[in-house]
Order: sequence, then C-alpha cells, then structure tokens
Amino acid sequence: MFTTQQTDAVIGALGKFEIELPSWGFANTGTRFVKFLQPAAATSIDEKLSDAGEVHRHTGVCPRVALHVLWDLPNGASGVEAVQHLAGLAGLRIGSIHPNTFQEQCYKHGSLGNPDPAIRKLALDHLLASIDIGQRLGSRDLSLWFADGSNYPGTQNLRHRRQWFEEGLRAAHQALHKDQRMLIEYKPFEPAFYHTDIADWGMALWFAKAAGPNARVLVDTGHHYQAQNIEQIVSWLLDLDMLGGFHLNDRRYADDDLTLGSIDPYQVFRIFHEILHFEWETGRRADIAYTIDQSHNLKGKMEAMIQTVTMALQLYAKAALVDHERLAEFQNQCELVDAERCLQDAFSSDVRPVIREWAESKGSPADPLEEFRRSGYLERITAERSEKNLAIAGSYA
Amino acid sequence: MFTTQQTDAVIGALGKFEIELPSWGFANTGTRFVKFLQPAAATSIDEKLSDAGEVHRHTGVCPRVALHVLWDLPNGASGVEAVQHLAGLAGLRIGSIHPNTFQEQCYKHGSLGNPDPAIRKLALDHLLASIDIGQRLGSRDLSLWFADGSNYPGTQNLRHRRQWFEEGLRAAHQALHKDQRMLIEYKPFEPAFYHTDIADWGMALWFAKAAGPNARVLVDTGHHYQAQNIEQIVSWLLDLDMLGGFHLNDRRYADDDLTLGSIDPYQVFRIFHEILHFEWETGRRADIAYTIDQSHNLKGKMEAMIQTVTMALQLYAKAALVDHERLAEFQNQCELVDAERCLQDAFSSDVRPVIREWAESKGSPADPLEEFRRSGYLERITAERSEKNLAIAGSYA
Amino acid sequence: MFTTQQTDAVIGALGKFEIELPSWGFANTGTRFVKFLQPAAATSIDEKLSDAGEVHRHTGVCPRVALHVLWDLPNGASGVEAVQHLAGLAGLRIGSIHPNTFQEQCYKHGSLGNPDPAIRKLALDHLLASIDIGQRLGSRDLSLWFADGSNYPGTQNLRHRRQWFEEGLRAAHQALHKDQRMLIEYKPFEPAFYHTDIADWGMALWFAKAAGPNARVLVDTGHHYQAQNIEQIVSWLLDLDMLGGFHLNDRRYADDDLTLGSIDPYQVFRIFHEILHFEWETGRRADIAYTIDQSHNLKGKMEAMIQTVTMALQLYAKAALVDHERLAEFQNQCELVDAERCLQDAFSSDVRPVIREWAESKGSPADPLEEFRRSGYLERITAERSEKNLAIAGSYA
Amino acid sequence: MFTTQQTDAVIGALGKFEIELPSWGFANTGTRFVKFLQPAAATSIDEKLSDAGEVHRHTGVCPRVALHVLWDLPNGASGVEAVQHLAGLAGLRIGSIHPNTFQEQCYKHGSLGNPDPAIRKLALDHLLASIDIGQRLGSRDLSLWFADGSNYPGTQNLRHRRQWFEEGLRAAHQALHKDQRMLIEYKPFEPAFYHTDIADWGMALWFAKAAGPNARVLVDTGHHYQAQNIEQIVSWLLDLDMLGGFHLNDRRYADDDLTLGSIDPYQVFRIFHEILHFEWETGRRADIAYTIDQSHNLKGKMEAMIQTVTMALQLYAKAALVDHERLAEFQNQCELVDAERCLQDAFSSDVRPVIREWAESKGSPADPLEEFRRSGYLERITAERSEKNLAIAGSYA
Repeated sequence: MFTTQQTDAVIGALGKFEIELPSWGFANTGTRFVKFLQPAAATSIDEKLSDAGEVHRHTGVCPRVALHVLWDLPNGASGVEAVQHLAGLAGLRIGSIHPNTFQEQCYKHGSLGNPDPAIRKLALDHLLASIDIGQRLGSRDLSLWFADGSNYPGTQNLRHRRQWFEEGLRAAHQALHKDQRMLIEYKPFEPAFYHTDIADWGMALWFAKAAGPNARVLVDTGHHYQAQNIEQIVSWLLDLDMLGGFHLNDRRYADDDLTLGSIDPYQVFRIFHEILHFEWETGRRADIAYTIDQSHNLKGKMEAMIQTVTMALQLYAKAALVDHERLAEFQNQCELVDAERCLQDAFSSDVRPVIREWAESKGSPADPLEEFRRSGYLERITAERSEKNLAIAGSYA
Repeated sequence: MFTTQQTDAVIGALGKFEIELPSWGFANTGTRFVKFLQPAAATSIDEKLSDAGEVHRHTGVCPRVALHVLWDLPNGASGVEAVQHLAGLAGLRIGSIHPNTFQEQCYKHGSLGNPDPAIRKLALDHLLASIDIGQRLGSRDLSLWFADGSNYPGTQNLRHRRQWFEEGLRAAHQALHKDQRMLIEYKPFEPAFYHTDIADWGMALWFAKAAGPNARVLVDTGHHYQAQNIEQIVSWLLDLDMLGGFHLNDRRYADDDLTLGSIDPYQVFRIFHEILHFEWETGRRADIAYTIDQSHNLKGKMEAMIQTVTMALQLYAKAALVDHERLAEFQNQCELVDAERCLQDAFSSDVRPVIREWAESKGSPADPLEEFRRSGYLERITAERSEKNLAIAGSYA
Repeated sequence: MFTTQQTDAVIGALGKFEIELPSWGFANTGTRFVKFLQPAAATSIDEKLSDAGEVHRHTGVCPRVALHVLWDLPNGASGVEAVQHLAGLAGLRIGSIHPNTFQEQCYKHGSLGNPDPAIRKLALDHLLASIDIGQRLGSRDLSLWFADGSNYPGTQNLRHRRQWFEEGLRAAHQALHKDQRMLIEYKPFEPAFYHTDIADWGMALWFAKAAGPNARVLVDTGHHYQAQNIEQIVSWLLDLDMLGGFHLNDRRYADDDLTLGSIDPYQVFRIFHEILHFEWETGRRADIAYTIDQSHNLKGKMEAMIQTVTMALQLYAKAALVDHERLAEFQNQCELVDAERCLQDAFSSDVRPVIREWAESKGSPADPLEEFRRSGYLERITAERSEKNLAIAGSYA
Repeated sequence: MFTTQQTDAVIGALGKFEIELPSWGFANTGTRFVKFLQPAAATSIDEKLSDAGEVHRHTGVCPRVALHVLWDLPNGASGVEAVQHLAGLAGLRIGSIHPNTFQEQCYKHGSLGNPDPAIRKLALDHLLASIDIGQRLGSRDLSLWFADGSNYPGTQNLRHRRQWFEEGLRAAHQALHKDQRMLIEYKPFEPAFYHTDIADWGMALWFAKAAGPNARVLVDTGHHYQAQNIEQIVSWLLDLDMLGGFHLNDRRYADDDLTLGSIDPYQVFRIFHEILHFEWETGRRADIAYTIDQSHNLKGKMEAMIQTVTMALQLYAKAALVDHERLAEFQNQCELVDAERCLQDAFSSDVRPVIREWAESKGSPADPLEEFRRSGYLERITAERSEKNLAIAGSYA
C-alpha cells in the first residue's frame, strides 16, 4: 500500500532509531499505597541486565541500559567491572547514568537545593562520583532528576535554592569529561507538593545554559501540566540546540509512568514528527537519547517493556511517513486542512507490516511479544525468582 | 472589634464543631519514592491513641479517633476490647471505621470490582467484619474508600465493575446496624491510573442511593479535578440530604494530603460557609462527620495535626461571621458585589482573638501549639520511640 | 488485509452510523477577542441548509440538521413551514432542536436558575415553544444546554438554583410529546466563571431522572475537566440507560470546539468502543444521537465539517474492528496486555480502504473532501456571499 | 492589635504601592456567547479616562491609566494631544501602552509569527507606531501580548514562528527610547487552541533576553496552567532581574479575568510576599508595574475596579506584615511549621483598620466603595450613557 519512497522513508528512520532500557523497569515498583509484587521481577543488577538483554534480543533496537547508581552500583565505582562484564554477557552497553539524591533521609529537605551546605556537598559528591562511574563505564549521558522542592508555602527560600542549584550544576559540569553530557530533567509536581526546584522546561533550560556547553534538557513526557503542548517545547529545544533526550512514558492525570502511547498515541507521534521534520529541514541529525522510563505495576515487566518498544517503533515509523515537502508548503501558505492532513494521513496508516518486514530483514522476530512468550524465558525466571520475590513485604502500613 | 451578635455567632458555631483525628496520621508515611522517617512517629495503636489524646487535650475539639481496621485491629474483632481500653485511657471515643481492601496482593485487580467473584467475596467479608467491629466499638460511620480501578484502556469491563460495586455495597448496607451509616468516598485518580471505579461525586451518589437509606457520600477535599467547584458539590449533597462527611486536607496538584488550608484557605471557608448557610436557611443541623485525612511527611506528625485543627477552627469561625440574612437578600436581588462582600468581609476578619477567648473559657489553652511544645510530650516520645523508628527502611529501591 | 469477518464488522457498523450536522456550524464564529469572517460563511437558514445538504451529498451519513431556535427560527413556529420546505430541497430532515436561553440580556443572571421568577417563566416559555416547534418539525430530540451559573463566590444560592432547575425541567418534560426526548447537557466552565448550574454528568443525570422518563444525558466531548475519563462516564450512562446523545468535537485546554479527533483521536475511539462493546454484549442497539458541535474559526466551514464526518467514520470503523469475544475473555481473566492489545490492534489498523469501498458501493464519493473541492460549490457560494459577509464587523472592542 | 513596627511596615508598604487602571476595563465586554451591556459602560476614551479618574479620586493609588492603542488612539499619534489633555483633566498620567495585533482580519494566522512577511511587517510597524505614541505620551512601558498561535497540530512551523518572533521583538526593541521598557506577556491557551507562540514564562524570558536590555517579562496571573506555582515564577524572575510587571486578575478554570483575589486570595498574597521578601533581603526596590487586567461582565465596571484596588491593598498590606527576619531564620533551619506560620499569621490578620487610617491620613475616603456610591457619579453617567449603550447589539449569532 505504501509507495517505495514511503517504505524507504520508514525503513530509513527505523534503521536509525534506538531506545534505551531502564534497569529499574525490571524491578518491582508501586504507589504510595502498596507495592504489588511480581514473581519474575528482577532484584539484582545481573537479573536486570539479563532481562534487558532478552528484550534487546527480541526487539533489536535496545542496545543500551540506563543505570541507577544507588540501586545498580551500591558500592560505587568498585562495581563497575562486574557491571561491565554482566552487560557484555547480555549483549548490551551501558547507557545513561542516573544519580540518586532523593532516597536517603538526609535529603528530606533537598539535595543541591538544601539550605544546609553539608548536604549540598554530599549531593554534589554523589554527582561527581556518578560522573566518574559514567566515565569508567563508557557512558555518555549523566541524567539528572532532582526530587528537590518543598511541601508548604513559605517554608523555603525559592531564590536561594535556585542559586544553590545553579552553583551545584556548574560544579558538576566542570567534572564532565569532554565527551560526556549532562541532561537536566524537569518536573512540576511530585514528590514535593508545593514547589519543585526544577519545575518546568524554562527552569531546566536556564540551568543547562548556566551549567556549561555540554548540558542539555531532558524531557520526560509525563512531567507536564495537563494540556501542555509538549511538542512545542520539543520544537523550541531543537531550535535552540538544547534538547538532550527523553524519558518516554504515558499518563492520564499525574506522572503515571504508563507504557508509551497507551493513553495518547497521537501526542507521541507529534513529538516524533517535530523531530523528524527538524531533521528534514535542517539536514542535521538531532542528537537525542531516547530512554524508557516506566513503572508498570501490574503488567509483566518484560512484556510491558516490549510493548513500549513496539509502540515507539510504530509511532516513529508513522512520523517518518509525513510528506515534509508538501507539509512545509501547506504550512507556509496557511492551508490548514491540507497541512493537518499530512499528519493525519501518516498517523492513520498501518505501519505494522513494514515494521515486520524490516525486523525480519535484520533477523529479528516479526512479533517480538509472541516470540518472547514462546521463548520460555519468563517461565524460567519466574521459577527461579518467585520464592525470593514473594517474601518481600510491599505495604506502607 | 466584633459586635456581640458576631461574637455569639462565632462562639455558638465553635461550640458545635468537632473534628475526628485519623489514627494513621500519627504514623510514618511517604511518597512512592521514599518514606521519610520521624523519630516520634507512632507505630502501634496505643501510641496512636496516646498521641491523639494529647492533641485532643490541647485543642478540645477532637474527642474521636478514626481507625483503620487492617492497621489498628490486625486481628479483627479480637482487638476491640484492647482498643476500647486504650481509647478510654487517652480520653477518646472511637470514630469512623476504615476498612482496607487495597493493600493485600489479592486486590491488585480490585476488591468489590474484581472480576474474580472469590476476591469480591473476600472484600465483602472484610466490610462485614469491619461493620461488626464498628458495632462493638460504638462507632457510627463505616467510611469506605476503594482503590479499585484499572491502569490501561480496555483492560477491564467498566460496566461489570459498576454492577459488582452496586451489589457489594448493597450487601454491606444490609449488615449495618440501624444506627450505623455507610459513607462512600470518591476519587478520580490514584492509585489506579486509567480509571477509578468510584471516580466522582456523581458515582458515589448513585452508589449511596443504590446501597440503602443509611448510605451517604463522603467528600475528601483532595479528591477532585483541578478547578472543580467543591462547594457546589457540597451544596448539592446538602440539598439532597446525602452529605455524610469530609476527609479534610489540602493540595496543589494531586491528592497531596497537606495540612488544611495550607494552599487554598478561601476554598475551605466557602465549603464551611455553604454548610452554615444551609443550616441557617433550613433551621436544620447538617449531620456531617469531619475527619482529618492528611499525610505530612516532613512536618512533625502532632504539630501538623494541631495546625490543621487550629486552621479548621479559624475557617469555621470565619464562616460563622457571614451575615446570612443580608446575603440571602443580596443573592435574591443579584446584587453581586454586595453579596460577595458578605463572604469577603467575614473571611478578612481576624477570628483568632475570639477563638482564644473561647478556648480559655473552656479551660483549653489559648495557643494549642505553644502549649503542646511546652508540654514535653514530644521530647518524651522522641526518646522512647526513636531507636525503633530509625531502624525501619523507607525506600522503594 | 482484513478478514472477511472484520470487513463485515466494519461495513455493518458504518451502515448504521449517522451523524447530525449543526446549522450553526456553517456560520461565522469567533472567540471573545475577534470573529474572523469567512467569505463563504452562511448567514441565513437557507444557506445553512444548503451547505448541510451538500455535506450530506458527499458523505452520505448526515441526513439530519440540528437547529438553533433563536438563530434559525427567529419568528418561532411561524417559520416551521419554510424550514421544512428548505430542508426538503436540500435532501435533509430536521434533527435536534436547540433552544437558546443565554443570549438575551434578560438572562444575564440565568434562565431556569434565575432568582427572578419572571425570567424563569420566560425561559420555560421558550422551552415550551421549542418543544412545540420540534413537534411540528418532526424532530425527536430537544437538546438543552444552559449557560446558567455565576461568576463570583457567594453571589447566588446554589441550592435554590438547583431546585429551580429541577422544577423547570420537570415542567418542560410534561410538555413533551411521547415520542420526543429531552437531552440534558452539562458543562463545568464557560461562560460562567465560578459555578455552572449543570456542571457535570452527575448533575445532568440527577436532573434527567427528576425530569421524567423521556429525559437523557447529552455528552459534549469538550465539556469535561482535564484528564477526566469520558468513556467511563459513557459506560455508566449506557449501563443506566441514560445516554441520549453526543456533541462531538475536540479540545486541548477548554471547550475549544475543534474538529473531531484533531487532538486526541484515541479518546474518541475509546468512546465509540465502549458503545459498540455494550451493543455486542447486550445485543441491544444504543439509541444515541450523534451531533457535531464545532466552531472552526479558521478552517473553511464546509471542509471542516467534511473532515469531522470523515474522522468520525474512521474512528467508528476502527472501534468496530475490536474482537469483542477475545476482549471479554481477557478482561475477565485480567490478561492486561492482551486485553489492551485488542484495542490497540484495532486502532492501529488502516480502515480508510474499507471505508472508500463502502462509500463507493453506496454511490457516495470515495474521497468526500476531494469531491467537494471538485464540485465548484465552494467557489459559487464564495462569489455569492462574499460581499455581504465581509461587511460585518467582527470585534469586541 | 498591631505593634507599632507592624503598623509602620504596613503603612510604609502602602505608601509605595501604585496600581494602573486599564482603559478597557470600563468598557463593555463579554464572552464568545454574548456581550452583556451595562448602561454606564464607557465607550470613548474621554469616558474611560473620566471613570478612571474617579476611581483614582476614591482610592488614591491609581495615578496612571493603561491604554490600548487601537481602541483608545484609533488614529494613532494624532490622538496623543487630546488624550494627554483628557488625562490631565481626570488627574491622571498615561501608563503602559498596549498595541493590538490580534483584532484585524489580516492577523488571523498571526502577527509577528505569521508566515507571510508582509503581515509580519504590518505588525512590526504597529509596534513601532505604538512605541512612538508611548514616547509622546511619556509612557514608560510597552506592554506586549500576542494572540499568535495555531488551532490544529501540524498547521504551522513552530520553529519558524519562534524565529520570526525573536526577529520582530529585537527590531521593536531597537526603536525603544532608552527610558522605555518592553514587557513581554505569555499565555498558554486562548484564543489559539493548539499552540500559542509565547506560551509560558520560559518562552517570554527567552524572548526578553533576546530582544535587548530593556525587555522584561510580564506576568498575567490568569495565564497559567492549573496548579502552576505562580510565586515560584515570580521569584525566578526577581532573582534574574527580569520581572517587569503584572496583569492582575483571578480565575477558576481559564483566563477568566475576574476581580483580584475573588477566587484565591492566598495565592495573590504569596506573590506579594515573594516580592516584599526579595526587597527586604536585597535592600533593592523591585521595579514592577502593577496593572489591573479584568473583564467583569456583570459587576458594575467601576465598582469592580474599586473592589480590586481595595483587595490589592489588603493583600499587599498583609504581605507587609510578614516578619522577614524570623522567616529567613526558620527557612534556613528548615523549621517548616514555624516558617509557614509567618505567612499564615500575616494572612490571618485583619489589615482593614490600618488601611482605613492610612487612607484618611492621606485625605482619601476610608471606604472607597461606599464613598463612590454616595458620590452620585454612577447615577450621572448611567443617565448620560444609557441610551447609547443599550442600542448596541451584543451577540455572536
């Protein structure tokens, strides 16, 4: 049904698409009310890497794993060698490194934004250690999300915290190797209830500019106010050469961390479209790290991961179908209906057959989920991990 | 500064105001990211009742404690006698009873709305046991909040679940003693991400009507969409004689469970105003159970509780200052500015001096927070509980 | 690519799908800031019916036109004969009748909810006149939207207004012919800023139940809080046999009245799916009036209308592709990923070829928009109406 | 009840507080559905200035009037002399100048962001003319709000429009006299439905930085997503020396343009608090232009204006009561409850008596609204303007 040109456009796009798997996406998670336990959940770095390797084996587009320093390298740099080895066994490379400055009791009033200079130093030291770990692991991106904020009006000086953040990020940037990047994430709510120190893309952009030339903004699709136009933010960041990467997921009300495209697939399509249209127009490749950041409490961890990768491929392929030349012309002439139809036609197209063909041509399974189910892997890890997992209590009583 | 009539109105209103303390409000809580531990947090029912008794001793308006069956009576009815005894020691009575059908692994796909009839029966049995416990404890209100819902479109049959809920609630209602009430709470989001079975006041109203004559709706102030007009819902429920009670707290984005009036005190004032205006107009007392439902992760548990009680008294007293006769006349004549000023004038008034006088006249401290701080209670429980509390891990890694 | 069974399901569904065109959708509209004028906009009932007839001629699924009493029958019942005649010329029947109790100065404090009984009577009289007009026109549905509300806290008695609405709707219901229905629409915001008398589906449901057996709820897809789960409301109303119809449009932030599916097509699909799944399960036809209610300020009126009809057909056809039996089984077994895939697979399918075949088999154009563009109709009305239209001032200065 | 120090703090703050009146706030306005006409509304610049002068006469803090170029100077610079003369008669000076690039049909696809270079030039020329008018009128601030945006995904190139805006604003900035400022306003929705070219404070900040040293950001309190923390944005802009002014109003759902503090007075208080705390800490005066921007469709124009000025004074005075030294200490120590109480105590205080005293000491009426009502002004203009006003049609039929 597609023209050769369309098929080529899709296959060309797919060939350049990679998406990073989060190590924490294979572990049990929950809400503040309860953590529902899965018998096959991963609880150690070797289990996480093994599961991620399996996902990559079936999808073929996930060669890297994002790590969480505190959970995956609890002993810091001394764990690097083992992690490297395990990743190699799983056929993976290490992707972005995520420091954690929100989980320890000392951070209850903040990390880089804490009024106590000793705590700020602690947080900075952890960032520096993470940068070092990243260098040792051959990882390019230091991915920074801060839970810093406050719960009640008046309880913190918002300007001081802003200044402390600027200082801290600048100091961390100085420690980056020239090939490393610093990605700064924003989030307007949760877990801090009243204010979040890096609340929106404008604040992240400011900090990235202030930190140094290797800093960029990271967009988590779930970290926006309702009805916010995310693709406009993406367009701005592309235009300013400040877009570093994505944390991909979906949501209805808050930061629900659902599988990609499960609530609003057209929005994800529009984001991908803005990126591909930018690339078409400028002739430049947008240097963006796509990472899955989800927390599927009830869906099987690995199935949910494969589901998201599959959806990402579909929506990216649809975006590749947009006829950029016609669109540019229609936009320029303010032919609204015709311009919109360029997007709608691409989105209405069924790209699954092309994706299947492309996958098979690479030696990957046409239907990764079915292939995974047939592989017996899930049954095996369920048997192996079940007892240990169900022993863990999951409630907040 | 107030006329005698105004002072009388305030004191008359305060004399009838009571607010229930939640046992769980004295325990450690957290977000999905981390639980920050407080050295003085209560971890047993005797500690919770003791702390609640202390709050009542200083505020004088909290004679009842709401209980959470699973946490406070883990052995069910056999714990009743001990709880009664402890409550008596603390100078308290037992208020509303909260069943828990969300915390056990079996409820991961729902309780009364679960497609599995065996799980629905388990949930109903827990409600029946809770009703029995309530009767033994002399508690009037069975307070029902369900975490039931689903995370992804299409994964559950919304109509079937609605029907199962209707059946289950009707069955539970039949077990109520004639003096017991069933309060049905609604919540549009969290912890289920895609749909919540009792999502809004309209669904709760329908279920309450369907359940039976002793069922009413419970309004949690944090369980609304942004910008929703809560006082209008309150007015409707008053008008239909279907308002049973409140869970009081405040929020910015989601169900943040912050201390009352910390974000939007004028909204709480408007809710109280609608209630008092209804009472003035009809000459009837609105039979409403006010319960605090908060989760202050960083504020001291007891200080935060006293803070909320103090704020509730202030906002209720302000509402009592509204000149109902003038307001009714202005409303009727569509004199918008004058009508609005009836509310604004009352809200702008400083009621703290009257509240202090009233408190002292009852033998309560004029400033409950200061008095609590002077009492030495906090230092004592901190010393006693500290070691045990800090041994508990709090993270979701 | 589809199985015969799938093709049959789609074609069967399309064969029963009809959508009503709004007469006001062919007229110039605007925002509070400015009304942008289109040279081809319709300004009289004959122009509106002519344009609607043309849309029906190209799409084949729009045999009825919804009328706005005040704009289309400014002289009331005396205009009935002429309207009937014009509709016949255009090959159309009259659909739902929309009274207007918001545009005249007397309604500035409300219509059925106005504290002044004389204004309430005026509003009721207009409803009665509209019912009479509907009977004369052979229209089944009286479609009620009220702009009633207030702009500031305290300025109106919310309970009195509720009671007045209940009285007024009951009185209007008594005048219905036994074949007529009353559809009650809800809207949480705009044009009243602080409160809206029929703010949500729960209020509309209450009023419909109170009004009488021929009253149903009308769902305007743009009249919800952000993130509200509309398909859940639809499921409830289906289950309670209280869903009467839809006003279809799309929106990002407020009641933007955009063309259907332009912002969130998956949501519209999910609504259609809930309806078709209900019909599959119960074996009953849901008796629902679909009406377009849009206000496309910049897109050409007729092109935008065709675009929406085309999108509605596509999304309805996709919903018809869902495998209900498999879905029901997966839902019952809580097989989340498989259940969700039933929806996702249907939504990912390209139904445009089947729709084209189906249209041609009925003698309709395969591509209604292209056919309309080729027809010369737009050029003709542009030439005819241009001068008159551009003479009208459009601003709110 | 206040200490001398507190009274001094309030009176000192009030003495420096001025708020600008919008000429358009005295004219009839409406929603997209209808414009409700007031018999006393102003329809000419002399009526507007006269009314504004009267408001200033009663409140004493509104010495300047903001003008809308298109509505108040329809003949451009040639109207300057007459306006100056009329302002002098009314005892007023000219405040900020508001260009209008949204009302003419040519701007339907945008002004500075329009793909057509000829339209962009038209818009820029209007800005330049407005700058010239501002210089002639002795006005300091050019206040820029753009309605630019698009209604449907894909219909415009977001990056091109961003670049065109940057160019246009830079060009306009070059024409500023060295004492003139350019204030750039942002708005996330309305009247464009899908995207707004200057959607949030981050975009406004970027443009202000790009435009030149005399550009600042203007915060309209109604132009935010729901639940957005406005005072945090204010704090950032203060800290970066980029806050230029405010458009003050209140809202529930959208940009409702209600009288200040009518929905959420505590939020306005928090904004004022952040400003006064900044001034206390830095010893610098924040150079901020406060302008009322409201559209009270049903309240009397002049009464609503006085009501807002009165509310602004109250909330500013409450903010002046905060004990900055104690607050800073508590913030630094993370004494959350005590820090929060610094704000809550100030907000709970009744500042009306001090404001009355202060007003009388300046020779202003203690109760401006009552004094205005007694003055007979309203009766006079009602008689004079009534006939003309009621002749104007107000609907969008």
